[in-house]
Amino acid sequence: MSTLVSAPLTQASEWPGLVNPDGTRWHYLDTGATAQKPQVVIDAVTRAIGTDYATVHRGVYTRSADMTLGFEAARRKVAGLIGASEGEIVFTRGATEAINLVAQTWGLANLKAGDRVLLSMLEHHSNIVPWQLLAQRTGIAIDVCPLTEDGRIDLDAAEAMLTPAHKLMALAHVSNVLGSVLDARRAVALARSVGAKVLLDGCQAVARLAVDVKALDVDFYAFSGHKLYGPTGIGALYAKADLLDAMPPWQGGGAMIDRVSFAGTTFAPAPQRFEAGTPAIVEAIGLGVAVDYVQGLGLAAIHAHETALVRATREALRGFNAVRLFGPDDAVGAVSFVIDGVHPHDLGTILDEEGVAIRAGHHCAQPLMEHLGVPATARASFGVYSDESDVAALVRGIERTLRIFG
Amino acid sequence: MSTLVSAPLTQASEWPGLVNPDGTRWHYLDTGATAQKPQVVIDAVTRAIGTDYATVHRGVYTRSADMTLGFEAARRKVAGLIGASEGEIVFTRGATEAINLVAQTWGLANLKAGDRVLLSMLEHHSNIVPWQLLAQRTGIAIDVCPLTEDGRIDLDAAEAMLTPAHKLMALAHVSNVLGSVLDARRAVALARSVGAKVLLDGCQAVARLAVDVKALDVDFYAFSGHKLYGPTGIGALYAKADLLDAMPPWQGGGAMIDRVSFAGTTFAPAPQRFEAGTPAIVEAIGLGVAVDYVQGLGLAAIHAHETALVRATREALRGFNAVRLFGPDDAVGAVSFVIDGVHPHDLGTILDEEGVAIRAGHHCAQPLMEHLGVPATARASFGVYSDESDVAALVRGIERTLRIFG
Repeated sequence: MSTLVSAPLTQASEWPGLVNPDGTRWHYLDTGATAQKPQVVIDAVTRAIGTDYATVHRGVYTRSADMTLGFEAARRKVAGLIGASEGEIVFTRGATEAINLVAQTWGLANLKAGDRVLLSMLEHHSNIVPWQLLAQRTGIAIDVCPLTEDGRIDLDAAEAMLTPAHKLMALAHVSNVLGSVLDARRAVALARSVGAKVLLDGCQAVARLAVDVKALDVDFYAFSGHKLYGPTGIGALYAKADLLDAMPPWQGGGAMIDRVSFAGTTFAPAPQRFEAGTPAIVEAIGLGVAVDYVQGLGLAAIHAHETALVRATREALRGFNAVRLFGPDDAVGAVSFVIDGVHPHDLGTILDEEGVAIRAGHHCAQPLMEHLGVPATARASFGVYSDESDVAALVRGIERTLRIFG
Repeated sequence: MSTLVSAPLTQASEWPGLVNPDGTRWHYLDTGATAQKPQVVIDAVTRAIGTDYATVHRGVYTRSADMTLGFEAARRKVAGLIGASEGEIVFTRGATEAINLVAQTWGLANLKAGDRVLLSMLEHHSNIVPWQLLAQRTGIAIDVCPLTEDGRIDLDAAEAMLTPAHKLMALAHVSNVLGSVLDARRAVALARSVGAKVLLDGCQAVARLAVDVKALDVDFYAFSGHKLYGPTGIGALYAKADLLDAMPPWQGGGAMIDRVSFAGTTFAPAPQRFEAGTPAIVEAIGLGVAVDYVQGLGLAAIHAHETALVRATREALRGFNAVRLFGPDDAVGAVSFVIDGVHPHDLGTILDEEGVAIRAGHHCAQPLMEHLGVPATARASFGVYSDESDVAALVRGIERTLRIFG
C-alpha cells in the first residue's frame, strides 16, 4: 500500500453517505450490496419528489407533461448505458423483479417439461429461485455449470453440458461474491450453438464494465438501480425487441392496457405492457441522473480504478497467513475471503467498530458458499468513491481482529 | 363560496410541490392521481438516500442495522394505520402490484374453473385486469356488480348476485372517479354469507377515511404510498395472517428464502416470503413518515375537510347549466363532471393555463366511462392541502372555458 494504486475518481464532498456522524470518512466497502448516492442523484430525487412532483403519462397539465418527458428521458439514458433502444427497456423494482418477469412471461410462454435451463454454481439467489419456481410449474430441468479453480463460470464445462434441450442460459455477468467476470461473448456463442437464449444478471457489471447488449447479442439483461448509484425501488430489464413484443403481460392494471372492457381487454405494446400501475417515477428520474453520472466518470476509468483497488486489496490480504482469498486476481469490484478461526460476522462487527463496513454472510449465494466449503465469507466491495484509505482501514481492522482472536 | 367551507389543515410552506415557478400557489386538484409530499416526507427521503443510506436485513455494520430498524418501523406504522399487525403487511411497488400478488398467489392456489369473482362497474383497471389475467389461466368467471343511480356499488344487487361459487369479492373502498364510499361492513357480511373472501382496493380510502381492517374483517387490503403523501415506488398489501401464511411465493430471489440449494429451496415466512430482492428501502422509510403525518392531522379531520370541499365544489358546479355532475353528494375526495360541448381534455388544457391542474380522461376506469356514457370525465380531487382558493380557481377556469366555447 506504499504506492498510490489509483487516483480518486470523485470528490469526497459529493458523497454525504460516506461521512460518519463525527465528520470522519466512513470506510464503506459494501458497494456490492448497494452503492452510496452522489449529491447530484440526491438533489434530483429531492426535486422530483418536491418542487417538480407530478404523475406521468396521464395528466393534461404542464407539470405532468414535463415529468413524463423526464421519465422517458431516463428510460433513454438507461437504454443508452447498455446500447439498447428505449423500447427494449422495462422499468422494474430491481434486478430480481426483472428476472422474475422473464421467468413468468417468456419462461411460462415458451418453456415446457423436457426443456432445460443452464445456470451456474455462483449465481445470486435472484437468478436461481425464479427458475426453480418456474420448474415447479412447468417441469423444466435446471443444470448447474461448475466453476474453474479460481472462481469463474467454467465455459468449457458449459460447452460440454449444453444440448438442444437447453432453451436458456442464465448467468451472472460479474459474480457478486467473487468479482469474476463472465466471458459473455463466448457464453452467447455457446448458447447460440444449441439455439438457447441468454439472460445475464448485470447487477454487478453495469456499474463497472462498459456493457453493450447489442455487441454481446444477449437476449435479456437485468440490473438494479441502487447498485448503480441510483435510488432504491427501480431497476431495468432489457429484452430484445422481438422477444419483448411476443411476451404476454404479467401484472395487470393501469398504463399497461390498450382498452379495458369486461368483455375482453387488449394490451399496450411493450415496454408499457410490463409496467402496470403508477411507476416508480421519482426513482426512474434519479436513475437517469445516476447513469449520467457514471457515464461522466467513464466506465473504462471506473473499471481501472476498481480493478486496481481489488489488486491492492488482494495483495495486502495475502500478507496475512490466516486469510484465505477467493476469486480470480483480475476480479472486478469485490474481494471475498475468510480468516481461519474467525467467523466473518465477528470480523464484520469488529471492523464496524473501526468505521469499516463490509458484508459478511452468504451474499445470497448459498450454493456458492457450499461449493467453497464455507458457511459465509467476508466481502470487501468497491465503488467509484473507494480509495486506498478504505483498503488501509480494512487491513488495520483485520490486524486488530487477529490480535483479538490470536 | 362566500363562507369558509373548511379551515386549512396544513401550512402552505409545508408543500414545495404546490408552488408555481413564479411563486404563486399551484391549484393542484389531481391528488386522486398522486398526492404532493409534505416537507417532512421529502426531508426523510433526502436523509435516507443520503447521510443515512445503507441496505437492510443484511449488513453487519451499525448503519445497516439502523436502516433495518427504520424499515421495519415503517412497516409497523403502515400496519398501525389500518389496524393490522406488522406481520400482515407486505411492501409492494404499489396497489397494482399488491392486487396482482393476491391474484397470482392466493388466486392461482385457490381458484379453479367454475369459481366466480365479483367485481363492480366502477373498479380501477388495477382491480379488473389482474382478475382477467387470472381468469385466462384458471377459467374462473368474473361478474360485475352494477351501480346505484348516484354511483355507489349496488350492494342490493350484489346480494342477489352472490352464490356459493363466488370465492372472492374485490371492490374499491372509495371510487377513484366518483368518490363514492363502499359500505364495507355490509359488503363483507354479504361475502361471508356465501363463504367468499373480500379484497378492498384502498388507494383512495386510506388517505381520507379511518380504516380498520380488523373491524371490517376484510381479507385483503391494497393501497399505494404515493397517494398517501408518501414516495412513489412503494405500496402495501394487507392480508390476514392465516391467508398470507398459506400463500405460495410469487417472485423468487434474495431475502424471501430460508435456504437455497439446487436440490431444493425453502422459503422464509410471510411477509418476507413476498419481498424478493432489495426492497424499496428509502421509499418505505418515506412512507412511514407520511403515515405519521396523516395520523398527526387525524383522519377524521381530513375526512371532514375533504367532504366539505367536495360539497362546496358540487354546489358551485351546479351553478353551471352546462355541467353534468357524477357521483353522490357525500363523495369523498373527488368530483367528476363533464361540460356539454367541451371535451374534458380541452377543459384540462385551459385550466392548466389558469394554474389549475385537474385530471381529464378515463381515470383507468374505462368500464365506468362506458356505463356513464362518456368517453372521459374531468375530475377535481382533493388532499389535505386543498382549500377554497383551489375550488374558486376551478370555478373561474370553467367560466373562462365556457366563454371560449360559448
